[in-house]
Amino acid sequence: MTDPLPTGATIGILGGGQLGRMLSVAAARLGLRTHIYEPGSNPPAADVAHAVTTAPYDDVKALTAFANSVDLVTYEFENIPTEALDIIEAITPIHPNRRALGTSQDRLVEKNFLQDIGLKVAPFADITNDASLESAIASIGTPAILKTRRFGYDGKGQSRLNTSQDAATALADMAGAPAILEGFVNFSIEISIIAARNPQGQVACYDPGENIHRDGILHTTTVPATIPSRLRTDAVLLAAKILNTLEYVGVMGVELFVTPQGLIVNEIAPRVHNSGHWTQNGCAVDQFEQHIRAIAGWPLGDGGRHSDVVMENLIGADMDKVPALAKEPNCAVHLYGKVETKAGRKMGHVNRIKS
Amino acid sequence: MTDPLPTGATIGILGGGQLGRMLSVAAARLGLRTHIYEPGSNPPAADVAHAVTTAPYDDVKALTAFANSVDLVTYEFENIPTEALDIIEAITPIHPNRRALGTSQDRLVEKNFLQDIGLKVAPFADITNDASLESAIASIGTPAILKTRRFGYDGKGQSRLNTSQDAATALADMAGAPAILEGFVNFSIEISIIAARNPQGQVACYDPGENIHRDGILHTTTVPATIPSRLRTDAVLLAAKILNTLEYVGVMGVELFVTPQGLIVNEIAPRVHNSGHWTQNGCAVDQFEQHIRAIAGWPLGDGGRHSDVVMENLIGADMDKVPALAKEPNCAVHLYGKVETKAGRKMGHVNRIKS
Repeated sequence: MTDPLPTGATIGILGGGQLGRMLSVAAARLGLRTHIYEPGSNPPAADVAHAVTTAPYDDVKALTAFANSVDLVTYEFENIPTEALDIIEAITPIHPNRRALGTSQDRLVEKNFLQDIGLKVAPFADITNDASLESAIASIGTPAILKTRRFGYDGKGQSRLNTSQDAATALADMAGAPAILEGFVNFSIEISIIAARNPQGQVACYDPGENIHRDGILHTTTVPATIPSRLRTDAVLLAAKILNTLEYVGVMGVELFVTPQGLIVNEIAPRVHNSGHWTQNGCAVDQFEQHIRAIAGWPLGDGGRHSDVVMENLIGADMDKVPALAKEPNCAVHLYGKVETKAGRKMGHVNRIKS
Repeated sequence: MTDPLPTGATIGILGGGQLGRMLSVAAARLGLRTHIYEPGSNPPAADVAHAVTTAPYDDVKALTAFANSVDLVTYEFENIPTEALDIIEAITPIHPNRRALGTSQDRLVEKNFLQDIGLKVAPFADITNDASLESAIASIGTPAILKTRRFGYDGKGQSRLNTSQDAATALADMAGAPAILEGFVNFSIEISIIAARNPQGQVACYDPGENIHRDGILHTTTVPATIPSRLRTDAVLLAAKILNTLEYVGVMGVELFVTPQGLIVNEIAPRVHNSGHWTQNGCAVDQFEQHIRAIAGWPLGDGGRHSDVVMENLIGADMDKVPALAKEPNCAVHLYGKVETKAGRKMGHVNRIKS
């Protein structure tokens, strides 16, 4: 059991995007420094970090120096090469742990894990070739989605099968990557729960948010979600089960489908999550600080909410709305400092405080 | 009338303490970068800044390079040498403007300014020698406080006269610095109002907070203050008068005494103010973002409050309370990353959210 990190200690963060940026600000609020490791130049997190390393994930020397310069390492995305993690972990702890990362990096491993601990998931099958896809379609039916096992996010690496005739095209879309076929779930709404666990085993959850996607990217999260209190309890219990089983340390985002049969786990993300951004303006301790508290061995915030919030992402040309949003009462604007606006690029978000 | 600063633009901040640190975080939230100029090494603001210059305020080359690297300059403290400001202002705009800074840098100039625009201040007199002090005591009476005209903060540069017999000692305490004698004001409570004005002339105020000091340093600010609504209106009107007269751009803290004769202005600070820290957990737009919005030409937040808050400073050994505070529900901890704890040093603050 580690002592809390003292003032002035440094947290290494793999990835310099907006999540790393907001983690860095949260670390500073607790008197901690951050060191960002990011291959790309001018990463958003660099604007608010104590130190930045610009190097690829196969640069052994840079990874070694980075790991030696920090007190522990965390990450803002899950697709980190295993070799990089091996180098770092030989020097300094990584939170959340390798098992959590390995589980969430592979859709097949993740689904099997969730099923093994008694949670419901969408019907799925391991796809390695034409024959396994054909037999999966026969058992799961269509419509269904073929997804790469690894490296997917925001709808990338996915191909929809409306009928069995789409099988060949969909498999070609995978470009030889290992894949799984997922059946569709008949759900009323999607919610997500942001949960945290610290090394002392303390678990805390925020109230679930209700998510609406557009073009495969999160559009809004509304808190509270329109679900009965029994489902809130279910969401908290299943999140706690996942975290405890993985001996998880940090914040996790768990996406859930609300169905007549109860909650079905869509996916887990071993990091702060876009659907938890509302906590910045709804809670005394937001998800970013909660993650830093967890990995730094601090007591967790209790997840309590002082205000209801609707979070809305600003994607690409949504930046044009910023001047109007800045004038809106009770609207908190959060921009990521990205100078280049691109279609589909997450540029910022707003939190509308509702009460 | 300037256009709003675009994403990726850089704000220069003179001073790298906790105010610069929190301004820097607020700038990042709006997609802006900061460049900190600070003579001391390892300033708190450096942990969250895009760039840092470590150089004294008489380093012409460093000041010139700094001014050339930013889109505009602001400051976190008022005692900046005039020569440094001259160098910077020849290159890039400074907000708040020189008149505001000059007024607040000198207690005599400040008192005369406030009186000239019709506001009430404590009885005061310019003190240049024994004779002027003797005559000031005769008119103002004792107890009174002798204060240096410049470079005072948190009770420094002040000497109390309980009777006229303390005059010689008090004058010796000033060490030859120009001073003013201030009479005591019979006040019930001290409040402060945090006000902002942007280049378009828009003015916005937060609800006044009620301040309690310990050992000459702010201890707590409670919002709302226990004052009748008529005094809230008075506070807003007088703050707006000060800002408009000075053609001020940025956030100002105005300390006020509540007396049977109404509000008496204690002092003004041309910057974000310790008594405005509560806004971080009470408002969609806090005082730091409000200052950045003002100087960057953004629309101002309206000053609305979603929660009542009690802010408490963590001074010196108060840091020992942090583990307990971190466990307290609805308590937001803000630390400044200062590794060395010293008596009287501001190490952080907490905001307790009350509703």
